[in-house]
Amino acid sequence: MGNGFVLVPAREARAMPVAAGARFRIVDVEGQQVCDLFAFVADDVFEYASAEHTRVWIDRLFPRAGEEFVTNRRRPILLFEQDNSPGVHDMLCAACDLIRYRLLGAEEHASCEENLKGVMAELGHDAIETPQPINLFMSVRVEPDGSLTWGPAPTRAGDDVVFQARLDAIVVASACPQDLNEINNFRPSSIGIQLLPG
Amino acid sequence: MGNGFVLVPAREARAMPVAAGARFRIVDVEGQQVCDLFAFVADDVFEYASAEHTRVWIDRLFPRAGEEFVTNRRRPILLFEQDNSPGVHDMLCAACDLIRYRLLGAEEHASCEENLKGVMAELGHDAIETPQPINLFMSVRVEPDGSLTWGPAPTRAGDDVVFQARLDAIVVASACPQDLNEINNFRPSSIGIQLLPG
Repeated sequence: MGNGFVLVPAREARAMPVAAGARFRIVDVEGQQVCDLFAFVADDVFEYASAEHTRVWIDRLFPRAGEEFVTNRRRPILLFEQDNSPGVHDMLCAACDLIRYRLLGAEEHASCEENLKGVMAELGHDAIETPQPINLFMSVRVEPDGSLTWGPAPTRAGDDVVFQARLDAIVVASACPQDLNEINNFRPSSIGIQLLPG
Repeated sequence: MGNGFVLVPAREARAMPVAAGARFRIVDVEGQQVCDLFAFVADDVFEYASAEHTRVWIDRLFPRAGEEFVTNRRRPILLFEQDNSPGVHDMLCAACDLIRYRLLGAEEHASCEENLKGVMAELGHDAIETPQPINLFMSVRVEPDGSLTWGPAPTRAGDDVVFQARLDAIVVASACPQDLNEINNFRPSSIGIQLLPG
């Protein structure tokens, strides 16, 4: 699939440097797959896209196309440019991690947190904070009483979202390995990340 | 007011060590005042009460009385024992910080983040992460379309909430200095924190 397309195999993650002004898309290759997306400032990875600062910035649980994600220093880092998906995304839930799977009964299990740490370590960033991720395509509905209802990702094969970087960034996409609940319809699959021409 | 009662003056914060099993209450002394509450594990302050892990733990935006707050390692740290208030609390919004106030036009302004850093530094913890706080009494309503509506804290003088520590913890209460929007009804006031007998 040339042209800057990087396949993120099921249960794995990939990092991609994205210059300020550049655009990229995240594709749900087979459908019903959640992508945990992280964005770090390239020259200081302790500044990163932050869910709790973004919610205050936009007064919404999740940005709409045309709105921005901001960092923990309240600087726009990603513009959410286009949403070619059902528009269901989550920014309330922590990344899955080893402890999450252990509590679900799985002693050894890939996780978005370990995926993230692995690809950042390959870039020389051994000590990072794990930000609360942008959980693309993930269905977590907030009910009127404040309870959360989880469901399978409603995406179909080829659905995508497009972002523009506002700062020089390291973007990490993890094809969420969760197969013990319904979010990936019990069948983790791959994700694509692709830099777009100017 | 003896008996373990600590007054947190308007716009300031106080830290209190709380042993596992001990109970404490947070009081809105004058009413309509938000308290940013943080809880760190006493022997490792990089483990702390985490909003995004707590939401997954309880499948709710905010615990109800009888439910627990967990850490970023998914261990219960606080039991929410009693809610003697209107029951309106927030766990979606970042602590206010210097940048937040600068963006609102105030170059010099007290903030919950600086308050937190100050009291933790006094305890010898110079380098901490700033967790997303437990914003007691803060009114941020989630609308059906995912937008957030902010309002003044609905508390009256003397309303309180009671917690029990599940781990040896350092609890920090900041009487939020926000006076540029409605959350404290434009009049920041004090908070009380009190250890309760056995």
